[in-house]
Amino acid sequence: MIRAGIIGSTGYAGGELVRLLLGHKNVEIKWYGSKSYIDQKYADVYRNMFRLVEDVCKDDDLQKLAEEVDVIFTATPQGFLASVLDERILSRVKVVDLSADYRIKDVSVYEKWYGMTHQSPQFIGEAVYGLCEVNRDRIRTARLVANPGCYPTCSTLAIYPLLKEGLIDPTTIIIDAKSGTSGAGRGAKAANLFCEVNENIKAYGVTNHRHTPEIEEQLSYAAGEPVLISFTPHLVPMNRGILITAYASLKAQQGSDGSSFPTEEQVRAAYEKYYRDEYFVRFLESGVCPETRWVEDSNFVDVNVKVDPRTHRVIMMGAMDNLVKGAAGQAVQNMNLMFGEAEEEGLRTAPVFP
Amino acid sequence: MIRAGIIGSTGYAGGELVRLLLGHKNVEIKWYGSKSYIDQKYADVYRNMFRLVEDVCKDDDLQKLAEEVDVIFTATPQGFLASVLDERILSRVKVVDLSADYRIKDVSVYEKWYGMTHQSPQFIGEAVYGLCEVNRDRIRTARLVANPGCYPTCSTLAIYPLLKEGLIDPTTIIIDAKSGTSGAGRGAKAANLFCEVNENIKAYGVTNHRHTPEIEEQLSYAAGEPVLISFTPHLVPMNRGILITAYASLKAQQGSDGSSFPTEEQVRAAYEKYYRDEYFVRFLESGVCPETRWVEDSNFVDVNVKVDPRTHRVIMMGAMDNLVKGAAGQAVQNMNLMFGEAEEEGLRTAPVFP
Amino acid sequence: MIRAGIIGSTGYAGGELVRLLLGHKNVEIKWYGSKSYIDQKYADVYRNMFRLVEDVCKDDDLQKLAEEVDVIFTATPQGFLASVLDERILSRVKVVDLSADYRIKDVSVYEKWYGMTHQSPQFIGEAVYGLCEVNRDRIRTARLVANPGCYPTCSTLAIYPLLKEGLIDPTTIIIDAKSGTSGAGRGAKAANLFCEVNENIKAYGVTNHRHTPEIEEQLSYAAGEPVLISFTPHLVPMNRGILITAYASLKAQQGSDGSSFPTEEQVRAAYEKYYRDEYFVRFLESGVCPETRWVEDSNFVDVNVKVDPRTHRVIMMGAMDNLVKGAAGQAVQNMNLMFGEAEEEGLRTAPVFP
Amino acid sequence: MIRAGIIGSTGYAGGELVRLLLGHKNVEIKWYGSKSYIDQKYADVYRNMFRLVEDVCKDDDLQKLAEEVDVIFTATPQGFLASVLDERILSRVKVVDLSADYRIKDVSVYEKWYGMTHQSPQFIGEAVYGLCEVNRDRIRTARLVANPGCYPTCSTLAIYPLLKEGLIDPTTIIIDAKSGTSGAGRGAKAANLFCEVNENIKAYGVTNHRHTPEIEEQLSYAAGEPVLISFTPHLVPMNRGILITAYASLKAQQGSDGSSFPTEEQVRAAYEKYYRDEYFVRFLESGVCPETRWVEDSNFVDVNVKVDPRTHRVIMMGAMDNLVKGAAGQAVQNMNLMFGEAEEEGLRTAPVFP
Repeated sequence: MIRAGIIGSTGYAGGELVRLLLGHKNVEIKWYGSKSYIDQKYADVYRNMFRLVEDVCKDDDLQKLAEEVDVIFTATPQGFLASVLDERILSRVKVVDLSADYRIKDVSVYEKWYGMTHQSPQFIGEAVYGLCEVNRDRIRTARLVANPGCYPTCSTLAIYPLLKEGLIDPTTIIIDAKSGTSGAGRGAKAANLFCEVNENIKAYGVTNHRHTPEIEEQLSYAAGEPVLISFTPHLVPMNRGILITAYASLKAQQGSDGSSFPTEEQVRAAYEKYYRDEYFVRFLESGVCPETRWVEDSNFVDVNVKVDPRTHRVIMMGAMDNLVKGAAGQAVQNMNLMFGEAEEEGLRTAPVFP
Repeated sequence: MIRAGIIGSTGYAGGELVRLLLGHKNVEIKWYGSKSYIDQKYADVYRNMFRLVEDVCKDDDLQKLAEEVDVIFTATPQGFLASVLDERILSRVKVVDLSADYRIKDVSVYEKWYGMTHQSPQFIGEAVYGLCEVNRDRIRTARLVANPGCYPTCSTLAIYPLLKEGLIDPTTIIIDAKSGTSGAGRGAKAANLFCEVNENIKAYGVTNHRHTPEIEEQLSYAAGEPVLISFTPHLVPMNRGILITAYASLKAQQGSDGSSFPTEEQVRAAYEKYYRDEYFVRFLESGVCPETRWVEDSNFVDVNVKVDPRTHRVIMMGAMDNLVKGAAGQAVQNMNLMFGEAEEEGLRTAPVFP
Repeated sequence: MIRAGIIGSTGYAGGELVRLLLGHKNVEIKWYGSKSYIDQKYADVYRNMFRLVEDVCKDDDLQKLAEEVDVIFTATPQGFLASVLDERILSRVKVVDLSADYRIKDVSVYEKWYGMTHQSPQFIGEAVYGLCEVNRDRIRTARLVANPGCYPTCSTLAIYPLLKEGLIDPTTIIIDAKSGTSGAGRGAKAANLFCEVNENIKAYGVTNHRHTPEIEEQLSYAAGEPVLISFTPHLVPMNRGILITAYASLKAQQGSDGSSFPTEEQVRAAYEKYYRDEYFVRFLESGVCPETRWVEDSNFVDVNVKVDPRTHRVIMMGAMDNLVKGAAGQAVQNMNLMFGEAEEEGLRTAPVFP
Repeated sequence: MIRAGIIGSTGYAGGELVRLLLGHKNVEIKWYGSKSYIDQKYADVYRNMFRLVEDVCKDDDLQKLAEEVDVIFTATPQGFLASVLDERILSRVKVVDLSADYRIKDVSVYEKWYGMTHQSPQFIGEAVYGLCEVNRDRIRTARLVANPGCYPTCSTLAIYPLLKEGLIDPTTIIIDAKSGTSGAGRGAKAANLFCEVNENIKAYGVTNHRHTPEIEEQLSYAAGEPVLISFTPHLVPMNRGILITAYASLKAQQGSDGSSFPTEEQVRAAYEKYYRDEYFVRFLESGVCPETRWVEDSNFVDVNVKVDPRTHRVIMMGAMDNLVKGAAGQAVQNMNLMFGEAEEEGLRTAPVFP
């Protein structure tokens, strides 16, 4: 059995980790860390766990935790892990970090967008960006995995094949994203009250959302050149789900008989090439739009694409559950890779509808 | 492997059966029956099942089905199963009926409340009412199980201990029930459109909802005398969940020093007595109100009770997922009992929140 | 023009008062009181008022306010008005209090249920309970009106005729109430976050909600004898609306040929008698259940009743908008009466649907 | 008094027209047309109108209607008005058409996108596109006004100033739109059931939504050259509201010291120029994102813009109520202009929140 500890187990992502790990046949949760609810019964905070979890919440002492478990999940505010991580911990346990601390390779970019000084930049280099479908092999041997952000996971997977295959112009990428409210966390803010979110949709973080440089870094790897994007997230009155609608101009291809644009078939072939063998990425049939309801409570990302011959643009769409593939599910997927488990273990449950 | 066939697999209860049976280690679904979507791919109707179910929808030929499977689930309109069931079918397969056809023992009561003639009353006698916590032993040997209605399941389990122990006056029971909208089914009715249900709550079926006699019959067994109730269901703008708030007057107890009313402790002891060893009925700690969110997507029923010393009444509360314990989950629980499987097999997943 | 001041103008009820008074042809709002947002532009807090309200929020200095306006509305926490009200204020302005400070005549009952000492019990006697349909004449001449609570307004109006006419047994009244989330206020509490309220229904305040004694007092006046009730409120995932489902046993009537129970016609006649001429109480046609969507954003209360001949009980139902007839709308209605305005002025807009 | 007739009065837009016209001091509704509910009481269909509307639904006989009213509103399916309109009707009454029949000047474009033959192309020329802020003067004298579509209204108003002032490149416009579900109408379709829409977001009509050519035509007028756009609408789980998030590349401006891009100030000045004096278009303060909740139930469109100096793109945002400014409210605004009423009459009510 893999012994797991969770720091931040009473946030929404932490709660989802608990739920998923309870369903994993080779994991035992040994530490329910929660600064806010220390010494309280976990099941008094998340009453869905009544009778399923008998443990009491503990603190966030990573040094002590490192002696008791095999893997630590940190679902904590930005900067926390960076401020406490050291070689001693990394030499004893594997760490899957759900915060942004080690996602961005250029520390100056991190510090600029997150407005804080990085406390342990020495680990940024070895941290592996845990987008399993892209970095699978490196994740297997990593000590420290930077679990991707929710928007970056869905955005990157929706766009990746066309950038990789050079079918779109990297300077034209626009990502319009929509997220359920669990992405805003469980903190008691007036802006997230039911009456403020319900019957409303709004954009936020326009031109300056922190996930922008993370997406740009990943897309740059795919494109083989620096990529700048426009990224606009929106808050949707629903609990779970992220939908990505991304736009880019098709790149004219030089052929023997002059230039032309990639066809729907060529575009679809690119997705097939990268996702044919991926269990968690479902490339939908032609004409079917991804919808968040079809992936809810699962680790699937549904992806599809449509060419617009009028504008020579392509619309790339992705839908996933922000708490699963966008957070806890991908963290479990990473853990599975790191410990040699079947990649789908604990993540095989079908999406729930309605 | 138990081979299962589902008639009505594209309704909400049918879809939930598919989801649950896919997670059951000893079941294989052999027949996705759906009159409305015959010859269409099941995953085109429920796109959450893309890549998980490759089958095409079939018709509702029970005779043929009886040759190919071990158990038939019928999630069909009232009267359908009664019109086609015969001894030949029952001699070959076990049947779990999610409709109301065999729930009520007095056929005249059925015919009055449902407004139709019962086509096969000869099977009413042998049908076992599939409320597992009450009729467990008889279910094990049944050929035909009448899977309880959603409101009756939650209502009966919330009230049962106090009636059985004689602590409440059976003539004073009032059940005020609230249900999510999936209970109304997937039929295209204007009354169930998003804009009609959202931002609204209403009572319906006041004094004449069809679940009334079903609840009364079960409560009568518990009380050992005929029970009449007031039952008022309400439609709540949410997908899943049933909440029962039931009221009754405590029965004055004759003691050596005059009469007195049962205390909170006596009342709680009654629940402990019946539910202490039940996995799926969670009797909550004192003062905690059941909420539908804490049981969502699970087979749990959360129950609690509060004595009001001012009025000598008791408020009995129950919460469950109408599609799971209120329909498909209980059907699987019944199947497990009928086939000697562990009662919890396929139903162990924790409630999902948020 | 009536000059109005609002203390607590940035809560949900206060915001609704602003909206309604802006539509009142003879009112000018002179004071937007808000302790939390003092010196901030009101329209920065409620952006729906951008360009419609240019004022900046002020403090809650009632003495100063009393010199500048004709009427003060207090949409403030329990105890605030009681702690600052004095004869000087009351001699200068009329006060409509949306808090519970002066609703309950027996100060010991108030202090027990609200857990605080009443700071100005000397004004309880003169305060008029502002349920316009019942106390219209006394409101006209009042200096201080205690604006009724949301649940008490809807409950009392739904039950009043049958108690007044002696058609129901006052010892059997059970009120099962359901409210939208705006009733919980705009405070930043985790329990009221979108993800906690959405897709959920729960009871709260079981046997001890503070509106219980307020309802009991009003029903006692109607019955002419002390009335104890069971009252259970529920939180519904919607912004606005209250639905009351109340139960009582019909009182057997002695006739020349033995006893009998009131008929549906007799019961309906009682409602007609009291509400025939009421603009804001709509007694629905037989068989139509009140729904919150049909009264949203309006000052209407929709009421209906159904006799259950099986149980000799009657089900009394009422629906209204908790922020309008349950708070700000009724406050305006009271102000209209106090200032000799047409009772419907500012409140004639039709309910909004969907 | 202006006598009004409404064809299609029981759809969502028709119902909103009824509500708004009831609040208009100079209008009397004489004809509630509804093919589906003919001879039924209007208030039995929309129970919010109980006691407020006593009329019975009538048919859609425009010839007869033309003799009884001064203005006809048609909130009808595409093609209906075109099939019955003739000179006799237009010579007697003014017509405001909420369908798309006369919005597009090029009949071949209409026929291609709507897939039907236009039955009365002879009236296309004289029809005035009823976007009041743009075509105010021509609307005043029109006999036939084509009331704009919901998406086109919000999209055009959000983008118009920058195109008109030549600050953006017309070939780069991408419009990502989000709509509440009332936009899908009141027809009984399974796809619009509560459980299908709730807890979900999806794109639809990708690359081929019918509002595309309507938006393109209006933007072309503003740009002074043909404009092609990418337009992607999304369905949001809420009743009302449209949010537009539009993207375009800023046009490099040639100055004496080389080229440069428009600044945030220049961009804002363009909006101020066009909307400074518009009552219903609220250009928000810098940094404030439009949200649908702040315009709900009102005729306002909230607009704002943000320059992204990293990408030299501009993000243009607009929010409005799809049933008011996007349908019935704009229709009333058009009627006001056509009949010499104050443009805001009947439309002055503040947005409702929450």
